[in-house]
Amino acid sequence: MAGKNFSEKHRILYYEGDQNAHVTLPMLVNMMVLASEDQSELLGVGPKKMSTTGLGWVVTQYQIKIKKMPKINEEVTISTEAINHNAYFCQRDFWISDKEGNELVHATSIFVMMDLQKRKMQKLIPEILEPYESEEVKQIIRLPKIIEPEDGEKLSHQYSVRYLDIDQNRHVNNSRYFEWMINTLDDEVLTNNFPSEVNVRYHVEVQPGAMINSKAIRSGSQGDFRTNHKIFVDDTLCTEANIEWQSYLE
Amino acid sequence: MAGKNFSEKHRILYYEGDQNAHVTLPMLVNMMVLASEDQSELLGVGPKKMSTTGLGWVVTQYQIKIKKMPKINEEVTISTEAINHNAYFCQRDFWISDKEGNELVHATSIFVMMDLQKRKMQKLIPEILEPYESEEVKQIIRLPKIIEPEDGEKLSHQYSVRYLDIDQNRHVNNSRYFEWMINTLDDEVLTNNFPSEVNVRYHVEVQPGAMINSKAIRSGSQGDFRTNHKIFVDDTLCTEANIEWQSYLE
Repeated sequence: MAGKNFSEKHRILYYEGDQNAHVTLPMLVNMMVLASEDQSELLGVGPKKMSTTGLGWVVTQYQIKIKKMPKINEEVTISTEAINHNAYFCQRDFWISDKEGNELVHATSIFVMMDLQKRKMQKLIPEILEPYESEEVKQIIRLPKIIEPEDGEKLSHQYSVRYLDIDQNRHVNNSRYFEWMINTLDDEVLTNNFPSEVNVRYHVEVQPGAMINSKAIRSGSQGDFRTNHKIFVDDTLCTEANIEWQSYLE
Repeated sequence: MAGKNFSEKHRILYYEGDQNAHVTLPMLVNMMVLASEDQSELLGVGPKKMSTTGLGWVVTQYQIKIKKMPKINEEVTISTEAINHNAYFCQRDFWISDKEGNELVHATSIFVMMDLQKRKMQKLIPEILEPYESEEVKQIIRLPKIIEPEDGEKLSHQYSVRYLDIDQNRHVNNSRYFEWMINTLDDEVLTNNFPSEVNVRYHVEVQPGAMINSKAIRSGSQGDFRTNHKIFVDDTLCTEANIEWQSYLE
């Protein structure tokens, strides 16, 4: 038995879209997190309740499969469910579907609870966990590891964390990492292709004020390529990802 | 007689807010433009119709007065109206109010029509203008000029235009300029203060791929200060602004 399902409708606004009029990858992630925040609020375990525990939810991995990128002005339904958990890890899934009920996006994510003062992982606490009714299991899903490309075109870009990258939890909004990653690629690549599968692992949080070195390797052929991404602050690997790309024309 | 009024409700989403849980200035501008785009669509002169004319609306100036920054999860009403126009310029106003009807934000803007191929200003064409029912006048409002500070603390920051800064019209989304401007200021300033009045003039469009030099001068005393902003691409002054700041505590 899985957990409680939560759904909400969302109209993609023009400022959530790119020059192709498709929703951007960072905004897609924002929309999914919005649904989980709204579910938490509904179940009485929203930010207010969380703040009394000194803990915060932190995502460690996302695997996002995208069949079709929703378009500006499209009304989509975002659904989410805390599938199961063990003592430390919780699997939460997300689905985005169009008006006809076709699934456009499916994501699986792993969340942990962090002591916000010590910035250390904590055991999940029943007080916060129970309302989601997720199943207790011994072993949660293992999402794929990040694959290192053997060779390819090397790209990189430097960024400084901006004031507006920081969210209410006083950490860099997870969606910003996606912008730092994909912006290393050529405009031509981003104009003609969309990420059909994204596997991202967060290792270390990027702190306000940090300088980011976003490295990418593009491998494969013109019509069939993938990218590997690494986000560094100095010598620390903070985040890494594999992205499979697909042409909009296919 | 002024033009047709259009209103819509909008809930401020967490990803439209900053670490203080207030809506960000760029998102505030996005929300206003959203209302004007939705009105245009409703009146049959949305992007599709516009694209048949080869023209596009371009904002040349905003004067935004903010009494109170809306907060995350707050439901606001955004209203807009094409007030009046002469042969070349159109005055469009915006209001944002809270659930009780209190006005939080009032903005006046000047829009022109641009030939998208030649990137040159054009006379307003009746075909697009008439549905808004804005009044024809000889002289439209003159918004305040940008004031140069006599002295103050000099700040600057460099940016490169990112793929996701470009919107559907293939130009840099207007709201990005606000991020480039305010991000020159210290986090401490941005955490404790909000822009109570913003006067921004757009002179030259920033092009995709450009390198931006955002300069600012902060003048006045600790409790009563203002900033002057200039956005350059090489030696070209693209945008300038005056911002008055007010403490959240007042």
